[in-house]
Amino acid sequence: MLAAEQKRSLVDLAVNAMAQHIAEGTWPVGSRIPTEPALAETLGISRNTVREAVRVLLYAGLLEVRQGDGTYVRALTSPAEAMRAISRASLREHLEARALLEVATARLAAERCSDADLAAMETALSARMPVRSHEDLLESFIDLDLAFHLSIARACGNVALAELYQYFSQSVRRSLRVSLLDCSLPEPDHAAHAAIVEAIRARDPEAAARAAAAITAPMLEALSGLLPTQDPLPKEC
Amino acid sequence: MLAAEQKRSLVDLAVNAMAQHIAEGTWPVGSRIPTEPALAETLGISRNTVREAVRVLLYAGLLEVRQGDGTYVRALTSPAEAMRAISRASLREHLEARALLEVATARLAAERCSDADLAAMETALSARMPVRSHEDLLESFIDLDLAFHLSIARACGNVALAELYQYFSQSVRRSLRVSLLDCSLPEPDHAAHAAIVEAIRARDPEAAARAAAAITAPMLEALSGLLPTQDPLPKEC
Repeated sequence: MLAAEQKRSLVDLAVNAMAQHIAEGTWPVGSRIPTEPALAETLGISRNTVREAVRVLLYAGLLEVRQGDGTYVRALTSPAEAMRAISRASLREHLEARALLEVATARLAAERCSDADLAAMETALSARMPVRSHEDLLESFIDLDLAFHLSIARACGNVALAELYQYFSQSVRRSLRVSLLDCSLPEPDHAAHAAIVEAIRARDPEAAARAAAAITAPMLEALSGLLPTQDPLPKEC
Repeated sequence: MLAAEQKRSLVDLAVNAMAQHIAEGTWPVGSRIPTEPALAETLGISRNTVREAVRVLLYAGLLEVRQGDGTYVRALTSPAEAMRAISRASLREHLEARALLEVATARLAAERCSDADLAAMETALSARMPVRSHEDLLESFIDLDLAFHLSIARACGNVALAELYQYFSQSVRRSLRVSLLDCSLPEPDHAAHAAIVEAIRARDPEAAARAAAAITAPMLEALSGLLPTQDPLPKEC
């Protein structure tokens, strides 16, 4: 057990050392990293530990294997680290970014969505039944709410935007939970959500954008009296 | 060496099995995952392999440790997987998403940026010297171009948006490379980039938004004659 713990921390140290080489530009994005024996030598650890650390960085998206060529730097910072940084931002910042993405994707969905996209959106809207009491039900409701908004993003005819929206909405899941539990924040009702689908079905981009903005605008307004980085403590219902 | 290879694939299998439990909702976001001995038993692998797989998923942001409580599901899909999905989208999709984020952050930067933000932007603008010939210089130029656009995003008074922009711009780095190498695509010049800084310095949000849009608009227009998902093969200069 002690040996396993020591090994764990050696791998973590190796992961951090390699991530630092990337972040500081010693290993630029697009460059090939040193070989396993060279890394073991430099970091003063076993090749096995190097291999484990590389696996962690591969899965995290900082490194990538080019078959028959070697291991290359894929990204400057860990996508998971970016997600943590996003989730640490304030509720106001989350709402502002959500509004930006939801308005843009609703507008594009009204221009481009297919019949299948519209059917998926309607199914997601029906499934989204607000529950604000029990903890477990709240988590399920958050899933359904996120699934509804994602069904709109998926209809926008831009995979990059839809994926970016999904990544973002996962990052801010906890802040969505806080805002749902906070009775002092206005909560958009079912009709407000249905209005987005209605406008997309009518192929009216501006109405879809307005309906999407109406979801976050009341909450942003309620927060606007506060200092930019100050979030209210949630007042649970 | 064979033993190490076998172990590697066991960890990969365990990582995939656990990621699948999360993706399929068997382990919902916010729930605690089974203990190490229980996982070893269920997956038919050693506790050591479970521990390595958990480490991979922790660093990737799918799991998180809550001190003294256990290991919880943090996100439904791997942030790195989302990055790969974004990077696989088409050049048109990348440009459209870039335009959306760059216009929004430039507008907000004109409203909110500090003197320090403006100084950082000006430094990044001066450093951004176009080079289109040598491979290595191209990579450096991409770094400088990304750093310039990031300096604007960082000035927008919204950490969530700035981080989202950085994550996105890392995802589309390769497509930026393709568009720079493609002589048939119009390339925005230094003046076009300087115009954004000028508008932000003048605290003119609409002018900043227009100048930011002018960076991607000519490329989007050049691509608009093509089918939605069809990218041109780069015609290297």
